[in-house]
Amino acid sequence: MTHLPEHLLNGYRNFMQGRYASESGRYVSLAREGQHPETMIVACCDSRSAPETIFDSGPGELFVLRNVANLVPPYEPDGEFHATSAALEFAVQSLKVKNIVVMGHGRCGGIKAALSNNAPLSPGDFIGKWMSMIGPAAETVASSTLMTSSERQTALERISIRYSLANLRTFPCVNILESKGRLTLYGAWFDISTGELWVMNKDTGDFERPELD
Amino acid sequence: MTHLPEHLLNGYRNFMQGRYASESGRYVSLAREGQHPETMIVACCDSRSAPETIFDSGPGELFVLRNVANLVPPYEPDGEFHATSAALEFAVQSLKVKNIVVMGHGRCGGIKAALSNNAPLSPGDFIGKWMSMIGPAAETVASSTLMTSSERQTALERISIRYSLANLRTFPCVNILESKGRLTLYGAWFDISTGELWVMNKDTGDFERPELD
Amino acid sequence: MTHLPEHLLNGYRNFMQGRYASESGRYVSLAREGQHPETMIVACCDSRSAPETIFDSGPGELFVLRNVANLVPPYEPDGEFHATSAALEFAVQSLKVKNIVVMGHGRCGGIKAALSNNAPLSPGDFIGKWMSMIGPAAETVASSTLMTSSERQTALERISIRYSLANLRTFPCVNILESKGRLTLYGAWFDISTGELWVMNKDTGDFERPELD
Amino acid sequence: MTHLPEHLLNGYRNFMQGRYASESGRYVSLAREGQHPETMIVACCDSRSAPETIFDSGPGELFVLRNVANLVPPYEPDGEFHATSAALEFAVQSLKVKNIVVMGHGRCGGIKAALSNNAPLSPGDFIGKWMSMIGPAAETVASSTLMTSSERQTALERISIRYSLANLRTFPCVNILESKGRLTLYGAWFDISTGELWVMNKDTGDFERPELD
Repeated sequence: MTHLPEHLLNGYRNFMQGRYASESGRYVSLAREGQHPETMIVACCDSRSAPETIFDSGPGELFVLRNVANLVPPYEPDGEFHATSAALEFAVQSLKVKNIVVMGHGRCGGIKAALSNNAPLSPGDFIGKWMSMIGPAAETVASSTLMTSSERQTALERISIRYSLANLRTFPCVNILESKGRLTLYGAWFDISTGELWVMNKDTGDFERPELD
Repeated sequence: MTHLPEHLLNGYRNFMQGRYASESGRYVSLAREGQHPETMIVACCDSRSAPETIFDSGPGELFVLRNVANLVPPYEPDGEFHATSAALEFAVQSLKVKNIVVMGHGRCGGIKAALSNNAPLSPGDFIGKWMSMIGPAAETVASSTLMTSSERQTALERISIRYSLANLRTFPCVNILESKGRLTLYGAWFDISTGELWVMNKDTGDFERPELD
Repeated sequence: MTHLPEHLLNGYRNFMQGRYASESGRYVSLAREGQHPETMIVACCDSRSAPETIFDSGPGELFVLRNVANLVPPYEPDGEFHATSAALEFAVQSLKVKNIVVMGHGRCGGIKAALSNNAPLSPGDFIGKWMSMIGPAAETVASSTLMTSSERQTALERISIRYSLANLRTFPCVNILESKGRLTLYGAWFDISTGELWVMNKDTGDFERPELD
Repeated sequence: MTHLPEHLLNGYRNFMQGRYASESGRYVSLAREGQHPETMIVACCDSRSAPETIFDSGPGELFVLRNVANLVPPYEPDGEFHATSAALEFAVQSLKVKNIVVMGHGRCGGIKAALSNNAPLSPGDFIGKWMSMIGPAAETVASSTLMTSSERQTALERISIRYSLANLRTFPCVNILESKGRLTLYGAWFDISTGELWVMNKDTGDFERPELD
C-alpha cells in the first residue's frame, strides 16, 4: 500500500480499533444530524499545538481554523479569496457557534519569522506577506532590545492574539452578536514545553494561568 | 473563571492529567528542539474530521492547515494575504515536510454550499467567494441531476481534492521537490458516519479503502 | 463424452454428490408443487455476479432474469418479443412474487460499452442498441470529465439501476401492486472486488452498505 | 433495515462469511483482470434451475443469460432492443467464449403456457408473444393427443432447445466460429425432481444421461 504514508495508515488503524470503535454511535449521529459545535478555535498549524489534543475534545466539539500563527485578518469585503474570513463567516452565521477562541502558542515559527529579517522562503514570499499583517507590532517588539529574544517572541505571540481578537470585532456579524451576548471571544496561549495554558483576562488583556483545582 | 468556556477548561484539565502527564518529556524536547513533522495535512475546519484524531497522532507529528473544505488555491504571487500559500510555503521550505495530504470528508458544509444556490451568509459573502474557487466544477456536478444529492456531494468532495492536489503542483517549490522525489502528495477522504478513510490511488485518481491488516 | 464441456460435467457431478444428495427432498417437492419464489432478481449475465451465489440461495428461492447490464426496458405493449417484459409479467402475474430486486455490479462490461465509443462488435450491433436504452444518461456521465473513469462507471451503474426501477413502475401491474403494498421494488449493487453489497435507500436513491449484524 | 428483503440479507451474510471469505483472492483478481468465462449458458429464469447451482460453478466461470424458457430468437439485425442477441454478441465477440449451452428444464412454466390456451396474463401479453416464438411447434405438440400431458411438456421443452440451437446458428458470428472449431454449441435438459441432467447428443439430437464416472 503506497498511497498513504505508513505512519498515517498505522495511526488510522489505531483510530478505528480505538476511538471509532468506542464512539461509532457518536460519529453516526454526527453524520446524520450534522455538526453543532459550540466553539470555534483559531489556532496555528504548528504540529505541537493541536486544539483537539490540548482540549481533549471529541468529534463534533470544535470547529477549527488553522493557519500560520493563528491570525485573523481584518474584515475586507473585497471579493477576494479569504480563507479565514470564510471560515469565520461559516462558523458564526451558519453554525452559530457561541464562542471563538484565538489560541496562540510558544515558539511559534510564524511569529519568529515576523521578528527576524530572514530572506523570503520563496519568490512568492507568502510567509513574509502573511506575517506582515502584524508588521508594525513586530517591528516595535523587535526593537525592544532590553527584552531577551525569548521575551520578545512571547510578547509578540500575545500581542498578535489581541490583534486577531480586535480584527474579529471588525466583522459586523461578530460585533453585533457579541454586543447581544450571543457570542463570546477568548484568547489563550499554550506553552509547548510545560503544557501550560495561559488564558487572556478579558478585562485587562493579560495572560494568566487558570486555576484547575 | 469566566475567561475560557467551561468545556475547554475541563478538557484541558484532562489533557494535563492524561496525555501531558504521560508525554511531558516529548513536549519538553519538542519545545527545545523545535518541530520536525514529516507530514503536512490540509484539512477542513469541520468539527468531525480532526486529523490528529483520525490519524491518532501525537504532538510534533502533523503540521495541519485547516480551512473550509480543505482547499488549496492556485499559486498566485501577487503580494496579497494567502493563508494557505503561507502555510504551504512554511511547511515545504522551512520545515521540509516529506508528505502533503489533502484530506476531505463527507457531508462537508463548504462543498454543500458550493452545490446549492443559497443566499450569501453575510454581505461579505466570504464563503461564496471562497468556494467559487471550485465554481466551475460545482456547476457541472450540480447539473448532474441523474445522480442523487448525496452522490453529487461525494463526487464534488473528491473532485475538489484532486483540484487542490493539482493546485499544489502549481507551486514551484512543490513541483520541483516532487519531481526530485523529496515530496509526495496524497489525497484522502474521510467518511464521518462509518469512520472509513478512502485513500486516493495516485495512478488513477480513484478513492479506495486501504487494506488495514 | 463430448456432448458437454468437461468442466460442466465435473461440476454437475459435484452437485449430485453434494447439494442434490442433501436436498433431494426439496427438489422433489419443488417439482411436485411448483415454484413459489418470493423474489425476482433482475441481474447481469456477468460471470462474477450470480445472484444465487451472492445471496447464498437454494432451489426455489429466486426467480432470476439475467441480461446484459440488468436493464429493464420501459413498458411497450407493441406485440414484439420482449424477453424482459415477458419474465416480468410471468413473475408478477403468474408467480406473484413479493419483491423485485434490480441488482447491478461494478466493472460491468455493458455499462463500460455504453460509456465508450467503441465500434460495434458485429454488424447487428446488438450491444450498442441494447445499451442505447440508457444512452442519454451514458452521454451525460461520459462527459463528466472531472470524475475518473472508474467514478463514471460506478455512477452510471447506479443511475441505470434507478432507471430500471423507474421503468419497472411503467408496467401497470407493477405500479398497481406496489401501490397496494403487495409488491416492493429494491435496488442493489455488488462490488466484485470487495464482495460488498450496496443497497439502494428507497427514500433517497443512494446506495449504502447494510449493517450485517 | 428495510431496504432489502430479510432473506436476501441473511443469505448475503452467509456469502460474506462463507464463500467470499474463502475466495476473496479470486474475487479480487476477477475484478482486477476482468472476467474470462469459457462458457455461456442460456437458461430459464425458473427458481429451480440456476446454472451455477447445477454446475457447482464458482465466480468467473459461467456467463449466464436467463429468460423465460431459455429461448434464443433468430438473428434479426433490425435495430430493435434484443436482450438475448445483445448477450450473445457480447459473450461471443467480446468475451470469446468457447462453449454455448442452451439448458432447459422440466416443468417449465413458459413451455406450459405455450402448450395451453390460457388467457393473457396482462393486456401486454408479453409471455404470449414471447412464447409465440415456438408457436408452430407448440401447436403441433399440443395436438399430439396420443402423448400424455407430461410427455407433451417434455417433448416441447426438448424441441425448443433444438430450436434455440438452430437459431444460434443464424447469427453469422456463431456460425463462422463454429465452423472454424472455435465455438461449440450444446443442449442440456435438467429434471428438477430427480436432479438428472440430460445432455443432447449432437449427432442425433437425442437427450441422454451422461455417464458420470
